[in-house]
Amino acid sequence: MSEPFKYTRRVQFAETDLAGIVHFSWMFRYMEEAEHALWRAAGLSVADPAESAGWPRVAATFDFKSPLRFEEEFEVAVRVDEVSARSLRFAFVIARGETVIGTGTLTAVRVVKDQSGALRSTPVPADTVARLRAAAGSQPHS
Amino acid sequence: MSEPFKYTRRVQFAETDLAGIVHFSWMFRYMEEAEHALWRAAGLSVADPAESAGWPRVAATFDFKSPLRFEEEFEVAVRVDEVSARSLRFAFVIARGETVIGTGTLTAVRVVKDQSGALRSTPVPADTVARLRAAAGSQPHS
Amino acid sequence: MSEPFKYTRRVQFAETDLAGIVHFSWMFRYMEEAEHALWRAAGLSVADPAESAGWPRVAATFDFKSPLRFEEEFEVAVRVDEVSARSLRFAFVIARGETVIGTGTLTAVRVVKDQSGALRSTPVPADTVARLRAAAGSQPHS
Amino acid sequence: MSEPFKYTRRVQFAETDLAGIVHFSWMFRYMEEAEHALWRAAGLSVADPAESAGWPRVAATFDFKSPLRFEEEFEVAVRVDEVSARSLRFAFVIARGETVIGTGTLTAVRVVKDQSGALRSTPVPADTVARLRAAAGSQPHS
Repeated sequence: MSEPFKYTRRVQFAETDLAGIVHFSWMFRYMEEAEHALWRAAGLSVADPAESAGWPRVAATFDFKSPLRFEEEFEVAVRVDEVSARSLRFAFVIARGETVIGTGTLTAVRVVKDQSGALRSTPVPADTVARLRAAAGSQPHS
Repeated sequence: MSEPFKYTRRVQFAETDLAGIVHFSWMFRYMEEAEHALWRAAGLSVADPAESAGWPRVAATFDFKSPLRFEEEFEVAVRVDEVSARSLRFAFVIARGETVIGTGTLTAVRVVKDQSGALRSTPVPADTVARLRAAAGSQPHS
Repeated sequence: MSEPFKYTRRVQFAETDLAGIVHFSWMFRYMEEAEHALWRAAGLSVADPAESAGWPRVAATFDFKSPLRFEEEFEVAVRVDEVSARSLRFAFVIARGETVIGTGTLTAVRVVKDQSGALRSTPVPADTVARLRAAAGSQPHS
Repeated sequence: MSEPFKYTRRVQFAETDLAGIVHFSWMFRYMEEAEHALWRAAGLSVADPAESAGWPRVAATFDFKSPLRFEEEFEVAVRVDEVSARSLRFAFVIARGETVIGTGTLTAVRVVKDQSGALRSTPVPADTVARLRAAAGSQPHS
């Protein structure tokens, strides 16, 4: 299996809750941030203003293993996990050093706006998949 | 001075931080929620899809007096505080029963998109102001 | 199967994103808000200051069917879906009128702080489950 | 006047709203992120677990000049603006290249928990101020 793309982040104060740890909903935002960084590394944007296409979510999951706390640094590893005709699934591992914080997935479907303004699902371009996959492998590994 | 419009809300878990109280940035969202409820009470919407006008913020302030905690109910009182040719300032008091949580302001300027797509400030319609002011006075006071 | 508990909510401006719809991460917060409202309806609190117990998430899922937009009102139906020795799973349906926005689950494990301050999973009290289940059935259905 | 401390950031998708720009409330979080980065650069933490002291906000302001959009990189410059016996005011300029996005302030008061658990304001340690001021000056300026 190819190398995942790595995105590094630090926990911010507003992301914690009264239990003293990161609120669980932030794991979904952390995954999305990593995914979008992968798009940029591939020379793409998930929300290219020049395109009428978009990538709404159709599914999101996360399994929580360990808590994250204020000011901790962590890493989000992301892979293109599964490609179907009209959707992409990304798989994620969030970790703080050797400690796995949790694992999750985001599935997005490609849509375009037709002339009436309605969204219609549409095939994922092969080139998009190739570029996303290549971006992870080309990341400098320090 | 006319009656303010009242908006009631409960603190949600994700709004708290590790200090055990509502994160300060939420006061700005609570103010906005109350302002938008006032627009609805006036039969308007701050983001009317049928209009090319919008109301971006030009200033926001908040003075914090007392903390809010998880599950507490509070009230946001909002008034149309100051009207200038191209902007509206709303003034807010957030309170939990007799305890003032804080006071703040939001100032919004009216903009329209011109044909090139650029935003341009534009006069505030007199009718908008009249309706916002009337909405507060007509609120049933239980 | 027993009646679900219903929680009603309106989409706020800050919950939308540049695609013009509610950002997907908010579905997880909407589910949590409904779950916590169910705890309150049961005469309980998910974060009772008098108890050293807590309910961290171990899993969260959501399947997205239709978008939600600014100012739309929607309903979150929540059920106690599965009870195991040390965890509870809640199942949710988010809908706007007849339109299903999506369905999801949140699984929480019961923990207590031991004397060293470490969190340890602990059996779910039978009374807690009974009260959560009863709360849904006793909700007035208008 | 001494050099400000600089914090660099990129706009994330969840920070935008249906107007296609960053929601105004995020400017307050961006300011806080920069402030907390300054504390770390000074070898301190705004929420040191070893201390019973905290820094709740007493005032926050922001004046908005230009919008920020998805994926744009920006810089938050922060200075220790005003020091009084029991509070610190930080002043901020958020900019994208030469374009000023806006300017703001955050004022925090130093509190400690007394034996009853109540919060009491307390003098700002001179050493804290000196370290925060020194941290900005010592930042490598690329």
